[in-house]
Amino acid sequence: MSTFLAELIGTALLILLGDGVVANCVLNKSKGQNGGWIVITMGWAMAVFVGVFAVGAYSGAHLNSAVTLALAVTGGIEWAQVPAYLVAQLMGAILGACLVWVAYKQQFDATDDPDGKLAVFCTAPAVRGTVPNLLTEIIGTFVLIFGVFYIAKGEVNLAKLEGLPGGFESLSSIPVGLGAVDALPVALLVLAIGLSLGGPTGYAINPARDLGPRIAHFILPIKGKRDSDWGYAWIPVVGPVIGALLAAALHMALK
Amino acid sequence: MSTFLAELIGTALLILLGDGVVANCVLNKSKGQNGGWIVITMGWAMAVFVGVFAVGAYSGAHLNSAVTLALAVTGGIEWAQVPAYLVAQLMGAILGACLVWVAYKQQFDATDDPDGKLAVFCTAPAVRGTVPNLLTEIIGTFVLIFGVFYIAKGEVNLAKLEGLPGGFESLSSIPVGLGAVDALPVALLVLAIGLSLGGPTGYAINPARDLGPRIAHFILPIKGKRDSDWGYAWIPVVGPVIGALLAAALHMALK
Amino acid sequence: MSTFLAELIGTALLILLGDGVVANCVLNKSKGQNGGWIVITMGWAMAVFVGVFAVGAYSGAHLNSAVTLALAVTGGIEWAQVPAYLVAQLMGAILGACLVWVAYKQQFDATDDPDGKLAVFCTAPAVRGTVPNLLTEIIGTFVLIFGVFYIAKGEVNLAKLEGLPGGFESLSSIPVGLGAVDALPVALLVLAIGLSLGGPTGYAINPARDLGPRIAHFILPIKGKRDSDWGYAWIPVVGPVIGALLAAALHMALK
Amino acid sequence: MSTFLAELIGTALLILLGDGVVANCVLNKSKGQNGGWIVITMGWAMAVFVGVFAVGAYSGAHLNSAVTLALAVTGGIEWAQVPAYLVAQLMGAILGACLVWVAYKQQFDATDDPDGKLAVFCTAPAVRGTVPNLLTEIIGTFVLIFGVFYIAKGEVNLAKLEGLPGGFESLSSIPVGLGAVDALPVALLVLAIGLSLGGPTGYAINPARDLGPRIAHFILPIKGKRDSDWGYAWIPVVGPVIGALLAAALHMALK
Repeated sequence: MSTFLAELIGTALLILLGDGVVANCVLNKSKGQNGGWIVITMGWAMAVFVGVFAVGAYSGAHLNSAVTLALAVTGGIEWAQVPAYLVAQLMGAILGACLVWVAYKQQFDATDDPDGKLAVFCTAPAVRGTVPNLLTEIIGTFVLIFGVFYIAKGEVNLAKLEGLPGGFESLSSIPVGLGAVDALPVALLVLAIGLSLGGPTGYAINPARDLGPRIAHFILPIKGKRDSDWGYAWIPVVGPVIGALLAAALHMALK
Repeated sequence: MSTFLAELIGTALLILLGDGVVANCVLNKSKGQNGGWIVITMGWAMAVFVGVFAVGAYSGAHLNSAVTLALAVTGGIEWAQVPAYLVAQLMGAILGACLVWVAYKQQFDATDDPDGKLAVFCTAPAVRGTVPNLLTEIIGTFVLIFGVFYIAKGEVNLAKLEGLPGGFESLSSIPVGLGAVDALPVALLVLAIGLSLGGPTGYAINPARDLGPRIAHFILPIKGKRDSDWGYAWIPVVGPVIGALLAAALHMALK
Repeated sequence: MSTFLAELIGTALLILLGDGVVANCVLNKSKGQNGGWIVITMGWAMAVFVGVFAVGAYSGAHLNSAVTLALAVTGGIEWAQVPAYLVAQLMGAILGACLVWVAYKQQFDATDDPDGKLAVFCTAPAVRGTVPNLLTEIIGTFVLIFGVFYIAKGEVNLAKLEGLPGGFESLSSIPVGLGAVDALPVALLVLAIGLSLGGPTGYAINPARDLGPRIAHFILPIKGKRDSDWGYAWIPVVGPVIGALLAAALHMALK
Repeated sequence: MSTFLAELIGTALLILLGDGVVANCVLNKSKGQNGGWIVITMGWAMAVFVGVFAVGAYSGAHLNSAVTLALAVTGGIEWAQVPAYLVAQLMGAILGACLVWVAYKQQFDATDDPDGKLAVFCTAPAVRGTVPNLLTEIIGTFVLIFGVFYIAKGEVNLAKLEGLPGGFESLSSIPVGLGAVDALPVALLVLAIGLSLGGPTGYAINPARDLGPRIAHFILPIKGKRDSDWGYAWIPVVGPVIGALLAAALHMALK
């Protein structure tokens, strides 16, 4: 499987399962309605687990544009690889969100609340405020990326470096992403962030996770949908990018 | 333990624990009543864990007719083995469902709602609709089988290939099922699907899991039971089969 | 640490944490009051995890008279060892239950309901009935012991067999208990049983777990306590013993 | 990374995620409000997981003054190292608590209840009483430290001992802290304590966890805050210290 395809499929699984759990809890006529915060956060954590487990061996399972940027900044991947990752992630996120709509079509039809329908796709803050919303996303993503640096190492890198010309062995300590054995630690890391830092903004902590499904919401012919809240859309993109850069900077300073 | 017996016992454990958690949450006079979606989905996930852990070394722990079909289609097992797996799974599922009735006999007697009693045994959609219900089961099973292909490898295959005549070593990369070390990943995969895609139809994602207990419901002398909803019974059989075939096709295309 | 002391300490930890979670959910003025079935079952599962993790290397961490009996019947331990295990488990269970009372003294004082106070210590059925209550405990314990046979192997046995005279190597496949690496699987097994089969009787599935704390309830000067429900006390002893013997019989028949 | 910095960062992560989950559940206008005891306890457990995973390789990830004391008493670390650990933990805890306030600034502003705001930072008993509150903290910390002794061994110690002068090899069985592989067991241990023994006092079980955030509450300009309940502040310091010493004593007596 190519890196591009792996990243697309992995992100589609992430969003299908992640947005899916929100649909299950938020929409009417769904068996998991009002399942509570433990269901939401466990659902997203397990979505990460499945996505990383499935494609970790093929693309390093970034599944998150902030992870890709952090790895590029710290030299884990080359900048030339970044556009393919970002495009694959965005396309995968859109695809995953569309599949949620297919799986929950009857529930969307049975729900009147247009805010709830949008919430299935993308995040919205509990209280609007540019600076505090940005800060919350920065802190959450900082924890994610800082943690990923300690998880992302081992067999993936070694596997990728086999067959490289001599002199590249020193790269083996630079993380390039996550492998299947990292699926549980990173899922628990995302569980931690969701449980603890998800309250104010719904923890996007990933530009692709928010922007892709928002585009899907914009495109899909969802009955009785509201606008896609584009005024907020930049915050779950810029906040995670800043958080990732800060985590990368601290990580490099500590080395 | 023979493959047949292992598969029967594993599926009986799966259904005893899986249908058991529904009984615990749905029936009156049960300590777990109204335990919520986290209890239901954790219960089914742990049911998978126990079933796979117990018999993985003996049968590859398919415990799911859709898994068996997907492995046959992709060459992981021979077609000649398929009937025994399917029969064992169905018999195990019926046995497991009967044991749930024994364990919860007083709770069945204390419950008037005939739909709730049926729900202990088999799935029913939150909103009826042939195409959307099929689609939801297809998507859920697709994720399950696609994920299982990445989990099902390693010691089981190697163990099974020991003692084979020379020339069969190339088979070692073809998954034939799940071993004990796969019990946790596959349980978390089923947890993910339940949390995120279980809302519309109750995630059968396994023909034996739905059909076997439905037969048990039909046979057992449950006080005040309703009909076994045979009009819906084909959907949690056909949907998972389609989902499994699609996942197998994508898996082979990606190789 | 001697086997006796290890088993006593491990069972005390099991009951301190297991009965503790019931106290937390049932008693007034407790922060976890009405935490729900997921809290109860996760609490007991983690209690098993801690107990097995702590003393697995020293006693095989039976922590359950039914496990000890099943291992004795199948030849995993010698009958001469059984009395020490049973006494240590009962003493540990009484000690653990007394510590729960100490930790939750204010909450006991703030609670009027005498049934709730008893429920902290020992199990009671949701609906009384000798045969169905026995059957539920038999089924639950059968699943526990049947599962333990597949988990209990590996480093503990090998460790114990080191230094044995030649000719005993063949014993290495006979389970003698659980080691630290088994702590998570067996905790998840108990989680499964609690979630799925705990509804009717509160899943004693362990004679020491029920009898020891019941004795503690009888002895302790708990304000406003009721009688210790001795009429029911034999069921969570006899049911688990029958379930264990059936599981041992099936396990040996399948070999 | 130096031991001091690692311990500071690890404790900051612990408190950011631990106090964060309380903020999420307790404050108004937060998506996790009223998430329940399972959210609180899973949040703290995952906070431990992330903190230990991130810095275990650098400082042994005590993240808890009671752990540091217990290791010093039993000879795992030298007394000369203790002050640096304690200061780093306290500074990290203050930093983490300040970050929670930043992340949840809007939620603090939207909440009137001054007790709830204090509860985000530090523990308070459900019922006040010096002796029972102390006893509960002693018992909870005893279980934590006693369990940590069985978890804390292996690669961290060995790594630290590499390069030591000959004759120190015998130290390799003395725990000096936790490594990344210990992150899940110790997180589940803390989960167990929270679920089962957290009801009466909110399970500080760690002087730094309580004192650091209490200082942050005292310093920060939180709108409508109450006093920082200094009258209670000594109990979650002294109780854990006593519990740790008792666990260390029992551990050494059992060797």
